[in-house]
Amino acid sequence: MKFLVTNDDGINASGIRVLAQSLAKIGEVMVIAPHTEKSGSGHSITVHHPLRLNKSNAIPNIDHVYMLDGTPADCVKMAIQGLNFIPDLVVSGINLGANLSTDVLYSGTVSAAIEGVILGYPSIAISQCDNFDHLDTAAYFLQIIIKRLTNPLPKNSLLNINVPGLPINQVKGIKVTKLGIRIFEDAIEKRLDPRGRPYYWLGGTPKSLPLKEFDDDHDQLAVENGYVSVTPINFDLTDYSLLNELKGIIETETTPE
Amino acid sequence: MKFLVTNDDGINASGIRVLAQSLAKIGEVMVIAPHTEKSGSGHSITVHHPLRLNKSNAIPNIDHVYMLDGTPADCVKMAIQGLNFIPDLVVSGINLGANLSTDVLYSGTVSAAIEGVILGYPSIAISQCDNFDHLDTAAYFLQIIIKRLTNPLPKNSLLNINVPGLPINQVKGIKVTKLGIRIFEDAIEKRLDPRGRPYYWLGGTPKSLPLKEFDDDHDQLAVENGYVSVTPINFDLTDYSLLNELKGIIETETTPE
Repeated sequence: MKFLVTNDDGINASGIRVLAQSLAKIGEVMVIAPHTEKSGSGHSITVHHPLRLNKSNAIPNIDHVYMLDGTPADCVKMAIQGLNFIPDLVVSGINLGANLSTDVLYSGTVSAAIEGVILGYPSIAISQCDNFDHLDTAAYFLQIIIKRLTNPLPKNSLLNINVPGLPINQVKGIKVTKLGIRIFEDAIEKRLDPRGRPYYWLGGTPKSLPLKEFDDDHDQLAVENGYVSVTPINFDLTDYSLLNELKGIIETETTPE
Repeated sequence: MKFLVTNDDGINASGIRVLAQSLAKIGEVMVIAPHTEKSGSGHSITVHHPLRLNKSNAIPNIDHVYMLDGTPADCVKMAIQGLNFIPDLVVSGINLGANLSTDVLYSGTVSAAIEGVILGYPSIAISQCDNFDHLDTAAYFLQIIIKRLTNPLPKNSLLNINVPGLPINQVKGIKVTKLGIRIFEDAIEKRLDPRGRPYYWLGGTPKSLPLKEFDDDHDQLAVENGYVSVTPINFDLTDYSLLNELKGIIETETTPE
């Protein structure tokens, strides 16, 4: 198998090193990752300035390692459309921190995997929750999941994997989950600076909610209960349930007055 | 009606001025927008530094106008969770440039509207394609669409509106559409700097594709044909079609060996 490996924590993060070295045991690995941490930079693609691509020796025992001064999505584009690498699987991670529920809309890690499926390749995003001492747990479960995926994923889909911060033998198992909602309550904290002027911190406590009432199989719950969560993701955000109702209300073949 | 207005082009953009002044004719408007252009900054929420909020007089004849040194999603959070403004509708735009198909995954404009629905309020993102001389066309069709939405939108959904760059009377009508795929072909261009070293531009020509073969009602096609496209968007990215199949392949109640 040929793996394209990227992340949003940057080429020097421990997560991508553990990921690449683990996948190298079962296939050919190309690593191309941002040269610095990009987890704050969202989903953007770099169009305002040109990109530099350089070989990197950040990951011992892997031959094809590159760093790019761009975003995670840029890295996937560069590998596939610039370097003509044809992966069997794009893997983004191992992210240091959960990417659960509505997090996926903001996550650079998941964004890279979405870029992979937009370009037509099966993709996985993998994140390590809470305790970063257990990257080996994430790598272990990723191998298990790849082995079980005997059929390739449909080309428009990807898997978002979140692994609890536990030693391998304390993980309860693997659950296939839905996305929930993660809302931060008391999200904005007002403080005064030394001159008495207000400033604001975004923070608050994450509250796990199901997307639909009574759903008890969302990803946050699985991870809280000690399971690895695997959520299939589709990047088609069209709300098909609203489509026909809206047609009747809104559509018109002339300019309305 | 109470409107919360934001954008990703920043408080000084012409699009938000036209939008706010247009909505002020039919309701109460609060504007809160990034202090500078944030269209390159993606979906992120600012957690690494605190935010400053200031009154702005960038939009004549509107009393409640604020600028925030954050992202579009920060602005929506600040208005609702910080300033306790309870909108009937969140409107993000008018973006200078299309947000069609897979663009919605990267768009700051749509991101702000997604933040609105995550917090529980109906939301609209509106973008002006191609020719920016016709912001009045976008404002006109937004008013038409708001008037037709007699029922409130379901709380987890939003509308993504794209308006062609045409005078009002040249627009063919309004189509309710699906998202398609927008892939950029020949996306990476390699050049050499004066020292002979390579650098890369992301670019290429956008190619419109339906998400599913034979779909002829995706948003790009509607706009190309001179229609306003209105796409209902849901932020639940769970791929329900894959869920059960995956359960059989992957789920386990113990740590696999």
